[in-house]
Amino acid sequence: MDQVKVIELKKSVFEANDRDADELRSELKQRGVYLLNLMSAPGSGKTTTLIQTINRLKDKIRIAVMEADIDSNVDAIKIKEATGVESIQLHTGGMCHLDAEMTRQGLNGLADEGINGVVGEQPDLVILENVGNLVCPAEFDTGSVKNAMILSVPEGHDKPLKYPLMFSVCDVVVINKIDVLPYFDFDLDKCTEYIHMRNPRAIVIPICAKTGEGIENFANWLLEQVKDWKGI
Amino acid sequence: MDQVKVIELKKSVFEANDRDADELRSELKQRGVYLLNLMSAPGSGKTTTLIQTINRLKDKIRIAVMEADIDSNVDAIKIKEATGVESIQLHTGGMCHLDAEMTRQGLNGLADEGINGVVGEQPDLVILENVGNLVCPAEFDTGSVKNAMILSVPEGHDKPLKYPLMFSVCDVVVINKIDVLPYFDFDLDKCTEYIHMRNPRAIVIPICAKTGEGIENFANWLLEQVKDWKGI
Repeated sequence: MDQVKVIELKKSVFEANDRDADELRSELKQRGVYLLNLMSAPGSGKTTTLIQTINRLKDKIRIAVMEADIDSNVDAIKIKEATGVESIQLHTGGMCHLDAEMTRQGLNGLADEGINGVVGEQPDLVILENVGNLVCPAEFDTGSVKNAMILSVPEGHDKPLKYPLMFSVCDVVVINKIDVLPYFDFDLDKCTEYIHMRNPRAIVIPICAKTGEGIENFANWLLEQVKDWKGI
Repeated sequence: MDQVKVIELKKSVFEANDRDADELRSELKQRGVYLLNLMSAPGSGKTTTLIQTINRLKDKIRIAVMEADIDSNVDAIKIKEATGVESIQLHTGGMCHLDAEMTRQGLNGLADEGINGVVGEQPDLVILENVGNLVCPAEFDTGSVKNAMILSVPEGHDKPLKYPLMFSVCDVVVINKIDVLPYFDFDLDKCTEYIHMRNPRAIVIPICAKTGEGIENFANWLLEQVKDWKGI
């Protein structure tokens, strides 16, 4: 069989983004802002999980949210109405992921808004809700301190086998909708085992965003992360 | 309902890519190289259509092919074996589209290879087979002179309604697998009407890549394009 020349495009594209992301992370460290990148497939319950988590943390730390979506505003409005925290919408215009430069544009927009109307006030925690997609967002470092993802029970416990990179890059995997475990063929032990095949240090947190079960564990993890990052 | 701030990320990302693409197109014009960007969903028959088309044109003009794929080489090898023309593989490493910078990397790699082993020889026509996806590739100008896409009969005649941008940016829509028209609920007239709703000037060419039916029409269109671009 003839051999053909192969060019690995990803290297240069990803290397440039990785540099941008590292730079953004250093700036955030200096400013004392913790950025969490939250990913998942569409419909896994990201927004509901965020509302529950923010309502448990908003009296302890200053929080702001950036909601990425192709072209609607509903998620940003929902977060603002349900929690009162600063929430802005990022329109990707059909793009399937966010990179570090796009994240920086969002953070600049957020800085212009300020916190509770006070321009110049900085958030302690910014949560970036990435585009609903298990492939492309995993490829691009956004400049976040940590990556989290939500896997919901109806999606199946085999997802870490089918989307290896997503599970490799996540520090925390939140398993949502555990209230419907009896009705689905979802094996939580097997899922945890598959997640740890991809990332042995990943923390697995089962929750039900609808009822609030387990949310405390995710909120506590996040609060410790923010304190640690700010050195307080 | 509370209003939230909305940031349109796409503008700056796309504006930067549009500039790169325009620059690449001018360079190609000066060098007399015609670049065709060929898009479609997975499995529509891009590679078979290319082989049939190249075999009708390769004695008239110098042709080279860049095959973009996530990580396999099979398409580039298949093209090289079936047509003998220069064919290289571009690995996107999980990315769902090509942009102008990635296309430039491919063209540089192709220039290093030369034509028929003669380094420095330039192709008259380079065909870029984009990643199989009807969404993201439509967003990014690759720097090509024209965009073509293949829609196959089993995919359904409603695709121009569901993927408006893809059909808006394509100058030619090749309808492949017309040999199976009797077995599918595919209305060619309705499909053409929907395509023209998106782009009134789009040329629609029905073919069957397997039997070769209609390929002559696509090959002739492409040959005229190349001659026109080179001013010959």
